[in-house]
Amino acid sequence: MEFSKRITGMQESPIRKLVPYAQQAKAKGKKVFHLNIGQPDIETPASFMDTIKQFDEKVLAYTLSQGIPELIKAIIDYYKKNDIYFEDDEVLITNGGSEAIMFAIIAVADAGDEILIPEPFYTNYNGFSAAVSVSVSPITCQAETGFHLPSKQAIEEVINPKTKAILLSNPGNPTGVVYTRDEIHMLAELAAEYGLYIIADEVYREFVYDGLAYTSFGHIKSIQDRVIIVDSISKRYSACGARIGSLASKNKELIKQILKLCQGRLCVPTLEQIGAVKLYQTPDSYLTDINHEYQKRRDSVFKSLNQIHGVFCKKPAGAFYVVAKLPVDDAEKFVIWMLNDFDDQGATVMLAPAEGFYATPGLGRDEARIAYILKENDLEKAMDILQKALKAYPGNTLA
Amino acid sequence: MEFSKRITGMQESPIRKLVPYAQQAKAKGKKVFHLNIGQPDIETPASFMDTIKQFDEKVLAYTLSQGIPELIKAIIDYYKKNDIYFEDDEVLITNGGSEAIMFAIIAVADAGDEILIPEPFYTNYNGFSAAVSVSVSPITCQAETGFHLPSKQAIEEVINPKTKAILLSNPGNPTGVVYTRDEIHMLAELAAEYGLYIIADEVYREFVYDGLAYTSFGHIKSIQDRVIIVDSISKRYSACGARIGSLASKNKELIKQILKLCQGRLCVPTLEQIGAVKLYQTPDSYLTDINHEYQKRRDSVFKSLNQIHGVFCKKPAGAFYVVAKLPVDDAEKFVIWMLNDFDDQGATVMLAPAEGFYATPGLGRDEARIAYILKENDLEKAMDILQKALKAYPGNTLA
Repeated sequence: MEFSKRITGMQESPIRKLVPYAQQAKAKGKKVFHLNIGQPDIETPASFMDTIKQFDEKVLAYTLSQGIPELIKAIIDYYKKNDIYFEDDEVLITNGGSEAIMFAIIAVADAGDEILIPEPFYTNYNGFSAAVSVSVSPITCQAETGFHLPSKQAIEEVINPKTKAILLSNPGNPTGVVYTRDEIHMLAELAAEYGLYIIADEVYREFVYDGLAYTSFGHIKSIQDRVIIVDSISKRYSACGARIGSLASKNKELIKQILKLCQGRLCVPTLEQIGAVKLYQTPDSYLTDINHEYQKRRDSVFKSLNQIHGVFCKKPAGAFYVVAKLPVDDAEKFVIWMLNDFDDQGATVMLAPAEGFYATPGLGRDEARIAYILKENDLEKAMDILQKALKAYPGNTLA
Repeated sequence: MEFSKRITGMQESPIRKLVPYAQQAKAKGKKVFHLNIGQPDIETPASFMDTIKQFDEKVLAYTLSQGIPELIKAIIDYYKKNDIYFEDDEVLITNGGSEAIMFAIIAVADAGDEILIPEPFYTNYNGFSAAVSVSVSPITCQAETGFHLPSKQAIEEVINPKTKAILLSNPGNPTGVVYTRDEIHMLAELAAEYGLYIIADEVYREFVYDGLAYTSFGHIKSIQDRVIIVDSISKRYSACGARIGSLASKNKELIKQILKLCQGRLCVPTLEQIGAVKLYQTPDSYLTDINHEYQKRRDSVFKSLNQIHGVFCKKPAGAFYVVAKLPVDDAEKFVIWMLNDFDDQGATVMLAPAEGFYATPGLGRDEARIAYILKENDLEKAMDILQKALKAYPGNTLA
């Protein structure tokens, strides 16, 4: 039996493909500290379920393909607070940020076209692109510079007539990089000069530390018809299982085109939309508190990593990830070894090997993404286990 | 600004694009009988919300990409009752039947490939295909034969090396056709002889009337590795707003490939999956009662249509749609006219013009899909209004 080339060519999620090893480890009674997946431990605000519980329509009917008006309004109000201005017909509700990204790619690129993505990148960008026959051209970034962008000229070298868009997450997943105002403006210039769209995945907008200023692509008026902003409630309100995202653009004609894709899949689930409206009314202090919590966790993990012999990373400024270089032959082998063959008093750690976050073959083999989504206490334990595991690992390159 | 060719080439949903006219009509105080959309008026079983209301996890987390095990099990049990047998690793939960169809197309066809679809067909088949750069080759069916399939030879003429699959809904949306055992076996033969997949959209499986025997592609063992069954709770349990569907195949390797797409979008919302488990435990009498209710409605609508001068349709045997030929110059114009310029004591009717359900240009222009999803009493009123509207319509071709 034959399958399509595009699907056989897709890689398995590097975040999820090692899950069976973790399940085996747990079946053997091992405690696994999960730093491999961006699933926050923060409680979802109770208003979400409270509102859903009040739903009392007798028929759970289709809703509007673009999303319910109350949620669109809530998102517009949210953006306003962030100095970004959208109107009703410039916002679409989607099945998570995932669907927003897939729809954006379909709308701006045909089969055989290319999109630029700074690597390492959120691995599913590759998956969505492959699924719709679009190629990824990586803009390689380095651990040594904290994964900031290379020069404008270096990016221009990757652009060709088939290039349709630049896709990036800011703050960055998996790197935690927060692009500077200059970097954002440099990309905006490239978009204008080469006629590219910017697909800006800004789901970690509130997760910026050290009081750093954040520049959204929504702030750059000069290219607003080229900007598509992808958003989600998953991380902001710790509601990953709700799968509520959105896609917004000042380019109303683009929104009209993408609405056709929304109509095709009819609508987004009703209940989560109703719940999401309430989430957007959560007091800002909720977000501030979470920001402080993650900054503490970031500090803790960074300090620990710095103390491990042979580990290298720059201090990340956003999201809740860091990509660290490890003194190992192969990070995937190392993670599997930690799950299968190692424990410290019955406990071990799971990381996401970083190779799958790169499009350039061979890059990232000695890197792993660490999601600091556990309480500080647990993070410290996990970092201690990691240190011991690196020491004991037969493939340690310093040994 | 340029958009992709695939998105600009997509038609607007013919079911939804006339919604603004209906909104205007209602704003003017007109009562609109909606026979244009397959939104049943049947109550969703209360068990759905009752279970969701009991959800008390503090963090609404990601769930497994393939779906929660309880729901996969419930679906396997459901199929068993229908003499169709699947195992755990042969079923994936999807965002509605819509996502299942899109994933199936991606998995079996590359950009530039073709899939065969009997026309008129559920219009979003075209949209999903276009979105992923796959072409639709229509197998034209006729109102005069009740939209049953043409000969095997006629279908063979449309098959070429780029053809990868046959996609069809059975019972048929928009036609209400229920394919005979011989038709299903003829398609199975074609699939085996030409190496095609069958993507079988069987979401209306319970909506078969007159005690007719139903043949699922799940019943045909000889080609089981070529069959992908798409399903959904939307119509079966009147839960359209839940967006819970599934994709199942005995081809385990295919399921493994499609799981990569599921991993890309992370997971399906948690709450609706929990609710759907309960829906599958609804007593069978619920489905039997609904079947009887729709059969009565079908009889009522068919009888009324037969009495309208110049209207033609064969009696449909399944789903809750009928495609009728109307004595009009253009069914879309007629529907807009009914909404804008006509009323009978303050009420009018909305249908779905059928042209958008065809891939062959020009076909279906004098046809409309009627969804008999209202109570008998309302249906009778709506048919009475339709009769009066046809008489008054300036574009009536019999006038």
